[in-house]
Amino acid sequence: MSTTIDVPESSNVAKGKAVIGAPQRPGGWKKGIAIMGFILRLGAIAAALGAAATMGTSDQTLPFFTQFFQFEASYDSFTTFQFFVITMALVGGYLVLSLPFSIVAIIRPHAAGPRLFLIILDTVFLTLATASGASAAAIVYLAHNGNQDSNWLAICNQFGDFCAQTSAAVVSSFVAVVVFVLLIVMSALALGKH
Amino acid sequence: MSTTIDVPESSNVAKGKAVIGAPQRPGGWKKGIAIMGFILRLGAIAAALGAAATMGTSDQTLPFFTQFFQFEASYDSFTTFQFFVITMALVGGYLVLSLPFSIVAIIRPHAAGPRLFLIILDTVFLTLATASGASAAAIVYLAHNGNQDSNWLAICNQFGDFCAQTSAAVVSSFVAVVVFVLLIVMSALALGKH
Repeated sequence: MSTTIDVPESSNVAKGKAVIGAPQRPGGWKKGIAIMGFILRLGAIAAALGAAATMGTSDQTLPFFTQFFQFEASYDSFTTFQFFVITMALVGGYLVLSLPFSIVAIIRPHAAGPRLFLIILDTVFLTLATASGASAAAIVYLAHNGNQDSNWLAICNQFGDFCAQTSAAVVSSFVAVVVFVLLIVMSALALGKH
Repeated sequence: MSTTIDVPESSNVAKGKAVIGAPQRPGGWKKGIAIMGFILRLGAIAAALGAAATMGTSDQTLPFFTQFFQFEASYDSFTTFQFFVITMALVGGYLVLSLPFSIVAIIRPHAAGPRLFLIILDTVFLTLATASGASAAAIVYLAHNGNQDSNWLAICNQFGDFCAQTSAAVVSSFVAVVVFVLLIVMSALALGKH
């Protein structure tokens, strides 16, 4: 498959590396994985920041009100949703800051340093993104279905737009989680096969 | 920093390896990391199965009842808690099955295969454990504090034992999550530094 035999000027270097079983083509599939990782990161940035923005702008005021108060639902009403907005913004910020390291991994596909740095921080932010997405999902589920035993009524009948918007934010955060898992698996493969 | 010049009997091998900066002692700290990983896995098994068992046995019936029904709270009442019990049992089962691979990593500290296998599955089950722990935490938080805007009242005043038990289960699941993050970071370090 590879055509390294046509490169005579570096044959002795290639021989020296053959002792440790390094691939003959420097770069190769590791570079491909690094480029795919960069693209996935761009997608994850869109998903994370989109989730934060969608949740952060969720706000619905019902068109009727009593003498004493209006009926309003916003992400502010739920501590879990506030946590969600902050965490997904953090995750998006981390992903933006991780892009330079991802570029270094593309330029130097065999350097373990940047990959190691990224896989460790990716794991931490995967945990953060999963925690905020799952806890928001639990609340969205309650808002849709309610819970009889604790007498918590579903609020999505009244606050339909609010529920649709928070559900979309949760789905978007799960997209970011899936991308994180892919990024970690890809980094691990690139680290392990050498 | 390194003292490779003091090893005359394998100096040519050491020279060949020095190109890629391989450690002089085979085994060494990688074996230590593998042993620590095995011990951490045992702790995670206890945490995950403990969380599942604690949540699964949470059941409280109030000592008063009306003509029509008794007041009872159990993990069955909440879909999120059912999900929690199933997921944490799955995570515990995976951790038990992963022990043989962890032992292989101890016996052969330089083999990338078992570590790669473990780091990928660890990432998947980290996501699962975090999702179930965080969603259960969101419900436990609601049970403790309620939510005014949606008119969900706190139920922990009545169901104190139920709340204490589910909170303990959530804390135990977070212990498992922390151990998973440590395991992945340690595996990544062992994979990356070669």
